[in-house]
This record gives sequence, C-alpha cells and structure tokens, in this order.
Amino acid sequence: MKIIMVGAFGTMGEYLSKAFENEHEIIKVGTKSGDVQVDITSTESIENMFRQVGEFDALISTAGPSYVGPWETLTNETFRKGVDGKMMGQINLVLIGQRYINPKGSFTLITGALSHDPQLNFANASAANGAVDGFVRAAAIELKNGIRINAVSPTVIENSPQYFPYFPGDVPVTMRELEFAFRKSVFGANTGQVIKP
Amino acid sequence: MKIIMVGAFGTMGEYLSKAFENEHEIIKVGTKSGDVQVDITSTESIENMFRQVGEFDALISTAGPSYVGPWETLTNETFRKGVDGKMMGQINLVLIGQRYINPKGSFTLITGALSHDPQLNFANASAANGAVDGFVRAAAIELKNGIRINAVSPTVIENSPQYFPYFPGDVPVTMRELEFAFRKSVFGANTGQVIKP
Repeated sequence: MKIIMVGAFGTMGEYLSKAFENEHEIIKVGTKSGDVQVDITSTESIENMFRQVGEFDALISTAGPSYVGPWETLTNETFRKGVDGKMMGQINLVLIGQRYINPKGSFTLITGALSHDPQLNFANASAANGAVDGFVRAAAIELKNGIRINAVSPTVIENSPQYFPYFPGDVPVTMRELEFAFRKSVFGANTGQVIKP
Repeated sequence: MKIIMVGAFGTMGEYLSKAFENEHEIIKVGTKSGDVQVDITSTESIENMFRQVGEFDALISTAGPSYVGPWETLTNETFRKGVDGKMMGQINLVLIGQRYINPKGSFTLITGALSHDPQLNFANASAANGAVDGFVRAAAIELKNGIRINAVSPTVIENSPQYFPYFPGDVPVTMRELEFAFRKSVFGANTGQVIKP
C-alpha cells in the first residue's frame, strides 16, 4: 500500500512511519523536510503535494496546528490558527486529495478527545477537533469509489510528556494504542468513524 | 432579563422572540433590520452591536449561515461560508460578548444534529456544528463570573418544511420543543451542554 504520511516528523508521524514502513511504501511529508513538503494552510501547496506524489492508497494526517494559550488571549485572530491548520488544513487534504486517491483508498485524520472532554487553554483545539469529527461523518456518506474516511481521536499521548500537566486526570494513550487506532482506520473497512485509541 | 436575539428575523428567532417577549426585554438583531444590525462575519460589526446594546443578561444566537450544496461543489472557498458564519461568527459573539455580558449571564448558540447524523449536501454544517459544540464545552470551563454557555442542537425544524426532503427519516422538531431547549439553556443553570430538543 502506498501511504502518504502528512506530519511524518511529528511525534505521532515518526512512530507511525516506523510501524508501517516495513510492509508499506510511506511517502513522508513534512513542512520543511521529507520526500515531499507541504504547508497544509495553503490549498496551492496541498495541490502541489498530491501532484508530486501521484496516485496513492491511503493518507494519514497527524498534522494539527492549533492555538494553545490562556482563554484571555483567544481572539478571532489567534483562533484562526486551528481553523486554518488542524481544521481546514485537514479538510482541504480530503477535498483536494479525493481527486488523486485510488478507489477503495482511505483518509485518516487526527482529532482529539478535547472535542468532548475540554481542558483549560485548549478551546481552539476543542473546536477544530469537533469540526473535523463532524466533517469525517459527513464526508463518509459523500465520497465515491469506495473511498473511506475516519478520524483518530486520542487524549494526550505517551510520547508527549510535556503536555501531561495540561491534561490532569487523563490517562495517556500509549503509542501502541495510537498505532492500532490508525491500523483500524487504514487497514479496516469502517468509514465515518471517530476512533478513540 | 435583557436578551439579545441574534438572528431575530429568521424562522427560529421570530418564534423565540414572540415566546419570550412578554416576560423579557428582547433586543432584536438582524443583518439588515431590527433594533440593532450585525454582520456576524465581521468582528468590527459584532463589537459595534455590543457597544450599542450595552450590558445584557443573555444572548441567543440562531444565526447559522453555512454552505449547502452537492459534495462536488465543496471547496476551501465554499466551505468558508460555514467557517466564517455559523462557526466563527458565533464563536466571536462569545469571545467579544463576554466583555459586555452581566455576571451570571448566558450565551446560547445554535448548532444541529448534522454534527453526528450527517445528510447529503450538508458537510459544511456538520463541521461548523461540531466546531461550535466543541467550543461550547471548552468555553464553559473558561468563562468567568458565573457566565454560562450552551448550544441547542436540533435536526430539521417543523416551521422549515422546505428542508424536509433533505432530512429523510428525521422527525422534525416542533417549535415548542425548540423553544423549551432554549428555555433550558437561558433560564436553567446548566453550562457546557449541547441540548437536543
């Protein structure tokens, strides 16, 4: 399977690339490194990425820029980081990528538990996650040619201990649990699901 | 109670204004008519609205522009109708309005069942609704001075029969059920809830 890994050099992307690369061809995509580069806030850059990669079987996105900071600093401007990044960046990967993906291919996007289980400082991610979850459910009934789409929605992950203080009471998701959630989406048959690892 | 009704001349806003105006002072806000006008896609216009109204006890928003149309016509550009309208328009009503609202006041935003129960042609609303639901949960733990926030999330409503063909199998929400959901949010004590009428 030819898999595009958007966010290949983040904590999740690196782990997933290693987990899948023995059995699959992984096209590693980063903002400034990798086999291909992309700025997901630019539809032109996304289109360029797909043109360079050509047809593919699965896209995994772990790319989720959003604004983290005290509520008092949330404005229309700071809020747009998650809107243009984690939300529209990932939605545009699908709206554009559907013209390049092989029949029966799949898109797997990253969201997170903050949509339903908020923590202080993360309202921007709560909204972006909720948007992507809603989009995934809607896209699943619209995509043609057997193309599937799911979201993986973890809480804080094991390999990002710097975030633990922001998620009191949340048991960190292990990297193995995270990997299996992505496996379920990419190699399973479900669509329109928000998978909680 | 002094209540700002944003979207006062839409199907929901008109009904709710009539339902509440005997007991409360309703400030009717429309895009081109009403006691005050607002374009919710403009933060400047929102700020002007709050300056004109002054302090208030509750804001109800039934203003939810989003893009409705065939999946093939969904692009970054068409998708922004719901992003800038139903999503950021309503989020900005809260981010800005929190500086004008009285202690123990409340915000009630409109979302919809499409976040979890998609229908063809409405992917933009699915995403916008999910975003607002997520935001409401996050804002509830951040807002100060006892200020509350909830969303009301109906499926198609009784008084909009033109939408019935787009919602096969959905039992329309009666206007009375809708009114009671808003009553629960505005006059009850809950916060961070997505209320299904």
